[in-house]
Amino acid sequence: MSTVDLNVDLGESFGAYTLGRDEEILDYVTSANIACGFHAGDPATMRKTVKLALEKNVGIGVHPGLQDLIGFGRRNMDISPQEAYDLVVYQIGALNAFVQAEGGTLQHVKPHGALFNMAVKDAGLAEGIAEAVYKVNPDLVLFGLAGGELVKAGQKAGLRTASEVFADRTYQADGTLTSRRAANALIKDREVAVNQVIRMVNEGKVKAVQGNDISIKADTVCIHGDGEFAVEFAKYISETLVKADISIAKISSFV
Amino acid sequence: MSTVDLNVDLGESFGAYTLGRDEEILDYVTSANIACGFHAGDPATMRKTVKLALEKNVGIGVHPGLQDLIGFGRRNMDISPQEAYDLVVYQIGALNAFVQAEGGTLQHVKPHGALFNMAVKDAGLAEGIAEAVYKVNPDLVLFGLAGGELVKAGQKAGLRTASEVFADRTYQADGTLTSRRAANALIKDREVAVNQVIRMVNEGKVKAVQGNDISIKADTVCIHGDGEFAVEFAKYISETLVKADISIAKISSFV
Amino acid sequence: MSTVDLNVDLGESFGAYTLGRDEEILDYVTSANIACGFHAGDPATMRKTVKLALEKNVGIGVHPGLQDLIGFGRRNMDISPQEAYDLVVYQIGALNAFVQAEGGTLQHVKPHGALFNMAVKDAGLAEGIAEAVYKVNPDLVLFGLAGGELVKAGQKAGLRTASEVFADRTYQADGTLTSRRAANALIKDREVAVNQVIRMVNEGKVKAVQGNDISIKADTVCIHGDGEFAVEFAKYISETLVKADISIAKISSFV
Amino acid sequence: MSTVDLNVDLGESFGAYTLGRDEEILDYVTSANIACGFHAGDPATMRKTVKLALEKNVGIGVHPGLQDLIGFGRRNMDISPQEAYDLVVYQIGALNAFVQAEGGTLQHVKPHGALFNMAVKDAGLAEGIAEAVYKVNPDLVLFGLAGGELVKAGQKAGLRTASEVFADRTYQADGTLTSRRAANALIKDREVAVNQVIRMVNEGKVKAVQGNDISIKADTVCIHGDGEFAVEFAKYISETLVKADISIAKISSFV
Repeated sequence: MSTVDLNVDLGESFGAYTLGRDEEILDYVTSANIACGFHAGDPATMRKTVKLALEKNVGIGVHPGLQDLIGFGRRNMDISPQEAYDLVVYQIGALNAFVQAEGGTLQHVKPHGALFNMAVKDAGLAEGIAEAVYKVNPDLVLFGLAGGELVKAGQKAGLRTASEVFADRTYQADGTLTSRRAANALIKDREVAVNQVIRMVNEGKVKAVQGNDISIKADTVCIHGDGEFAVEFAKYISETLVKADISIAKISSFV
Repeated sequence: MSTVDLNVDLGESFGAYTLGRDEEILDYVTSANIACGFHAGDPATMRKTVKLALEKNVGIGVHPGLQDLIGFGRRNMDISPQEAYDLVVYQIGALNAFVQAEGGTLQHVKPHGALFNMAVKDAGLAEGIAEAVYKVNPDLVLFGLAGGELVKAGQKAGLRTASEVFADRTYQADGTLTSRRAANALIKDREVAVNQVIRMVNEGKVKAVQGNDISIKADTVCIHGDGEFAVEFAKYISETLVKADISIAKISSFV
Repeated sequence: MSTVDLNVDLGESFGAYTLGRDEEILDYVTSANIACGFHAGDPATMRKTVKLALEKNVGIGVHPGLQDLIGFGRRNMDISPQEAYDLVVYQIGALNAFVQAEGGTLQHVKPHGALFNMAVKDAGLAEGIAEAVYKVNPDLVLFGLAGGELVKAGQKAGLRTASEVFADRTYQADGTLTSRRAANALIKDREVAVNQVIRMVNEGKVKAVQGNDISIKADTVCIHGDGEFAVEFAKYISETLVKADISIAKISSFV
Repeated sequence: MSTVDLNVDLGESFGAYTLGRDEEILDYVTSANIACGFHAGDPATMRKTVKLALEKNVGIGVHPGLQDLIGFGRRNMDISPQEAYDLVVYQIGALNAFVQAEGGTLQHVKPHGALFNMAVKDAGLAEGIAEAVYKVNPDLVLFGLAGGELVKAGQKAGLRTASEVFADRTYQADGTLTSRRAANALIKDREVAVNQVIRMVNEGKVKAVQGNDISIKADTVCIHGDGEFAVEFAKYISETLVKADISIAKISSFV
């Protein structure tokens, strides 16, 4: 029987601004990536989100982003590996303090947005991130795109890693995600989306848009926390995976 | 033989901006309060400052400030005890991650500027801060103005506390500092300043501007890190205290 | 026949965060106070909001706030009159550039949140704000709480002013608003709320919670832009005032 | 007789942080690029710097940067032309308000750091910037690297432009600056540096590092405002150009 983790971005509210349906979606995921105030989130939101995740017994992860609140951390920035190291150390620490204060333990780190995307291809940046995680706490699991540089850097650093896959994104023959700008980037049919995940988990394969099968490691699936049907889809994928005899569990319990 | 700690604010540079003579002054103090990015400091500066403090074997403290970079955390803000709690937890965590990454241990927390000043009189705010420190790490020493609410709140919360005194400020009959707006707020003669400290440490007394003696507890002396003669004064007070048979040691070694 | 202006806070979205139902509410107001990026708003939101307000032919106002994004500009800060002057000049300019780029003209300035509230009682701060408005553009109308220091400072500086009243807030015998912390601060019955406005506009009077009538000048009514029933209430008050033979017009057309 | 403008970045202090020797260097330049709070500068600094520039009768320019205070606006960011437009409009307005309040007039716009560099090659970004300047005030002069996209976009938009050259940087055969990472990027001999400028101004030519002469338009020379010898070099180049019969004048007086 295969096992997979379902992770979601959480705690992305900021001050007077509310984002996401955090409480509802926590019922269908096993790991939560909590924003740390650089691209989203703030100290009060972090405290509340950590409490919520602990109540729901979900694995708590740091979701460090670029210092670009206005762009929600989604705009690539030319930062050095040292700068990546520094901002990841800082954000791990900030979230960890809330987790400690509530008597919990951190489980993982998943970089956000542009930081995540840049670390798929930029080995130097990926190493800066992996080193930050390792030096602060070598027990943390590092999330990265399946097949990308971040997972490699994590392994090299001596960390447990989680290869992340997407239900609703198509893949290219080289294993990368189809750019969001392409017409066929998204999988809108939820049945197709979930079947893609089931095959990735059970067979370690996904069909690229070019038609060929490629190998892929699927430790964790990215679940979206906002959008009109986010909660419904989370419920659907969760239930469908279980029916397909896939066990859903926190990443730290099986990697 | 009496013992006292000498503490200094450190790591207040930000991005392209440099402030203070951190490296030099570390030779004359025993505890360093490191800014955490809210009122000053940034992740790179925090990393470098932590390394420096560890090299010099100085006790490392968190120096949490209000989220007011443009005002250097010196402008009072109407924040709630909960907001104080949240921003202190966050900043302890952020600095702690750099300390952990370098293999060190945090020693203390000293709030910065307006947060420090408001917590002298505002018991609710002081309790929010003390609770934050206690919940993240009950081994940390909490610094507050001698006789103020923060020291009381720290003791009530179960923390070790450090009563802070000033060499270059005069005191009122009620034990508070003379307002900086008053003409006699500052002691400019360094010999008078150091003698005030010696008496506070050895006798637990200070002469108020009104002429009477008041009781005061002096665990740690605030040393300024900027200003033209900062390093020279730090050297002078350090040497003069030793000559007066006062032992200078990290706060965590004797409270 | 009496005339009154209806003003609403607008453009309070920020980056990925959306707030308010700006487009709908613009149908029922005559003046819009647009956030300028300090407490809310960002350059893109400012551009879009200015365009919208011009399309709907609503008077465009600057809504300068404290530099406290995380607190939405609602937390009092100890700023000097000079600091108030500087941040008001800056924010008037920033918004004005978008207005100029779209071929429009600025109509007014209404400080936001804590800046507005502090300027009700703090004459120095009020003068700093009024001077900023006057020096950048003496044709702008300055909004302040009816009877407060800001209106006085505006008049003293040579500006046209708008005395603002509230439909849904009760008044104290001294003409100030009942604190939001008091149980009787809010008027929840919309009929009572609108009747209060009609009487303030037509008779220049409002009944204080203590029971006595007090004099009040009502040039403009604060309409809330968020909240579940914001648009409905805006429509209701707008229609009811017209039925009561009160003309609704942009502030610049009648002060 | 040829004419050239000397421009310097100014007003880059922030809050408690001081940068540059603004007052001294103003004696040797004709145009000042004033930071607007995104990459450096703050409202108080803007006010003071505008006053200073007016007193010294120097042309006042907007120096808009990326919203990256911690990186001093020097890190490239993937922003869209629309985002560039928005942040340039905003910053022009903010500075303009201080200029208006002091009774002066804006002269020019020179993007800062990464925004300037990206606009050398990115035509879309350059057009976004040029459109922003034109729509807010078509009388402003737009500064860009000689031969780069920003100058072209400015001309296309209908603006007067200023082609900027460097005294202390070497040029490549294609007219671009040698990357700062290259060993031969900088000209350290001040005599060589000034002779390069004299030839660019008088002959419209510069010798590339490859040895060949290339054509270059030199309307304005970038003078650095910080660094140990900044003021001395500004004085030296200013005096040496005059001796070489080159007239030094504000850009708006001759383009």
